[in-house]
Amino acid sequence: MLQISDKGKAIPASPIRKLVPYADKAKQKGIQVFHLNIGQPDIQTPEIALEVVRRMQLSVIEYTASAGNYSLRTKLAGYYQKLGIPITEQEILITTGGSEAILFAFMSTLNEGDEIIIPEPFYANYAAFAVMTGAKIKAVTAKIENNFALPPISEFEKLITPKTKGIVIINPNNPTGYLYSKKELEALANIVKKYNLFLYSDEVYRRYCYDGLQHYSVLNLKEIEQNTILFDSMSKRYSECGIRVGAIITRNQDILSTSLKFGMARLCPPALGQIAAEASLDTTDEYFQKVYDEYIQRRNFMVEELNKIPGVICPLPKGAFYSIVRLPVDDAEKFARWLLEEFDYNGQTVMLAPASGFYHTPGLGKNEARIAYVLKISELQKAVEILSVALQTYPGRVVPETLTKS
Amino acid sequence: MLQISDKGKAIPASPIRKLVPYADKAKQKGIQVFHLNIGQPDIQTPEIALEVVRRMQLSVIEYTASAGNYSLRTKLAGYYQKLGIPITEQEILITTGGSEAILFAFMSTLNEGDEIIIPEPFYANYAAFAVMTGAKIKAVTAKIENNFALPPISEFEKLITPKTKGIVIINPNNPTGYLYSKKELEALANIVKKYNLFLYSDEVYRRYCYDGLQHYSVLNLKEIEQNTILFDSMSKRYSECGIRVGAIITRNQDILSTSLKFGMARLCPPALGQIAAEASLDTTDEYFQKVYDEYIQRRNFMVEELNKIPGVICPLPKGAFYSIVRLPVDDAEKFARWLLEEFDYNGQTVMLAPASGFYHTPGLGKNEARIAYVLKISELQKAVEILSVALQTYPGRVVPETLTKS
Repeated sequence: MLQISDKGKAIPASPIRKLVPYADKAKQKGIQVFHLNIGQPDIQTPEIALEVVRRMQLSVIEYTASAGNYSLRTKLAGYYQKLGIPITEQEILITTGGSEAILFAFMSTLNEGDEIIIPEPFYANYAAFAVMTGAKIKAVTAKIENNFALPPISEFEKLITPKTKGIVIINPNNPTGYLYSKKELEALANIVKKYNLFLYSDEVYRRYCYDGLQHYSVLNLKEIEQNTILFDSMSKRYSECGIRVGAIITRNQDILSTSLKFGMARLCPPALGQIAAEASLDTTDEYFQKVYDEYIQRRNFMVEELNKIPGVICPLPKGAFYSIVRLPVDDAEKFARWLLEEFDYNGQTVMLAPASGFYHTPGLGKNEARIAYVLKISELQKAVEILSVALQTYPGRVVPETLTKS
Repeated sequence: MLQISDKGKAIPASPIRKLVPYADKAKQKGIQVFHLNIGQPDIQTPEIALEVVRRMQLSVIEYTASAGNYSLRTKLAGYYQKLGIPITEQEILITTGGSEAILFAFMSTLNEGDEIIIPEPFYANYAAFAVMTGAKIKAVTAKIENNFALPPISEFEKLITPKTKGIVIINPNNPTGYLYSKKELEALANIVKKYNLFLYSDEVYRRYCYDGLQHYSVLNLKEIEQNTILFDSMSKRYSECGIRVGAIITRNQDILSTSLKFGMARLCPPALGQIAAEASLDTTDEYFQKVYDEYIQRRNFMVEELNKIPGVICPLPKGAFYSIVRLPVDDAEKFARWLLEEFDYNGQTVMLAPASGFYHTPGLGKNEARIAYVLKISELQKAVEILSVALQTYPGRVVPETLTKS
């Protein structure tokens, strides 16, 4: 029988990308769409990375090593050492984007039916990678009222069963923008140690922390060195999402050598992307200062302006470039489709990522959306204006009763 | 407990790549290693592809669409149409190399415990992708004595159970170099139709057929249009293995839309690779004629010279750039390690891919190796000489008793 597999049926379409066909139709009608749905920054890729691609001297674009180019692994190790995180190239496996790092680490550690605990809302594709490995997600809910801080450790502990293999955190968080404190991470380390769990930490937004806050890596947590598995992404850090270069970083050599077997099956990460990534590691602090200044300005603008709209709650993100925003609507997915299918304001509209796709618990996030502030202030300004008008017009508008601004 | 998953334990290390550490050590000792183990051609990437990378004008290397760039999909559809295979861009999903095409198609169609039938020896990574999806491989054995032709259909039929979901073929075959005839394919189509199975066809070596033989694609088989799923690879066809760009091509929209959900989870295929791939589709027949002439020369040289070595049997490949060679040794894997660890001839040695990793049935292929003729004639000459001397010296040499040259 020509049937789709159970996993094929179960894997969710990306909440970030599934409305793309509606956006395409809107664009075909001549409507300009401001994309607040996707973490595709408009920030220029560092010139040093573009230049090295243009100067590419290869006459045969060959496979690289399955673990990635040795020169890239070595340089990435140096990057970590400079951050005060003692890592060698022997603890690094280069992957095809951070996505593949998650897939390989899950495949290497999780059996069908095993459980992982993740604070929700979380980056939606974790649900997809869990489906691919047959693992079950158990969610502890972070609250918008608490700015999406780490839920109490007791909430995690309640979910631990003999099937529990690990805890996943995203820090800074996508989609909430929350940055976990050293204290929160140490609390996690305790429970990880107590139950001997894996701690998978997605730190791809490490470079994007605001208000003078410092990022603390799980790789510096003591006594759980064999438990921690880090996901990194050069694509994301250096605004070159398309190069598809990430990494698994862990001191657990069993995990790394197992992940390498999965890596051999796909032969190698992209050769051209690795060239760009390696050069990117020399990106200057000056570049990041400019990027920081830009994002801070955007964040402050977004948060301030969104909170001015009646019924909208937008917490202040401490990192990354996202926020989960509560909207005065019946259903944010319906609203997002309506924005693309039925609404425009002077020939323009906005695309949002409905938040329900970032929650594991059914029903949660129904009146929330993830907003990425990756557009220029002038465009954000228009986007907020459009959103404000849309919220007044939308037939499914719900005047919030119980919610008050935090 | 910090344990490796069952799949992590089960996934085999690549027989092509797992001896790399021994090769590295040999190189560190100053020994020159001729690589007959890996299908990394030394043929130059088409200038048109290199040029477009060097002229890359992007200032932000963004994500592409999850399905791949529309322009690439359209152009690839045009390529198929020119080959007399009516395909539209709506039937194409761009993947990160042919490897990801296999992974997504398997994930979309196979449940844990489902069975697929593959003629062995087969490209070893199919075993890895089967492990990742939890599918079981049932092998029908192709025989070196028959030049690795398609085994009788009755052999396939014997293996069919209610769990059987499909048949996988690689055409031209890696590792045997066999090219399936239209008649063989039609016989497969009959059984596929009879039991309503998927027919997964790996045609990444389509452009490499010799002796005036024509490649026939499963996409042109009648009455099984919904059953056929094709794996393609631009990386491989245009000697740009490192770009990591392949495709799933199928008229079955359920498979394609399900595969796209897996594609959304990994966001997109490599952007720079897609630029190179799109340009590569304009590669001239003149380029391929030169490549053809080169491979034919290499193939003829390899086959002739190898068959001169006492005890060696090398069938004549009709396509791709591999051959499975029978060697007068106790164990080809031991021999391959010995070549790297203990042997050199004037400071040079050879790296082989032991064939056992390409067989599913335990014990088969123990005295066989896959040889890729992807080196210049002058280097192949040296490689054959080294191999000849090595086979005289190797302590595990076995004088074949029952085998005769076919």
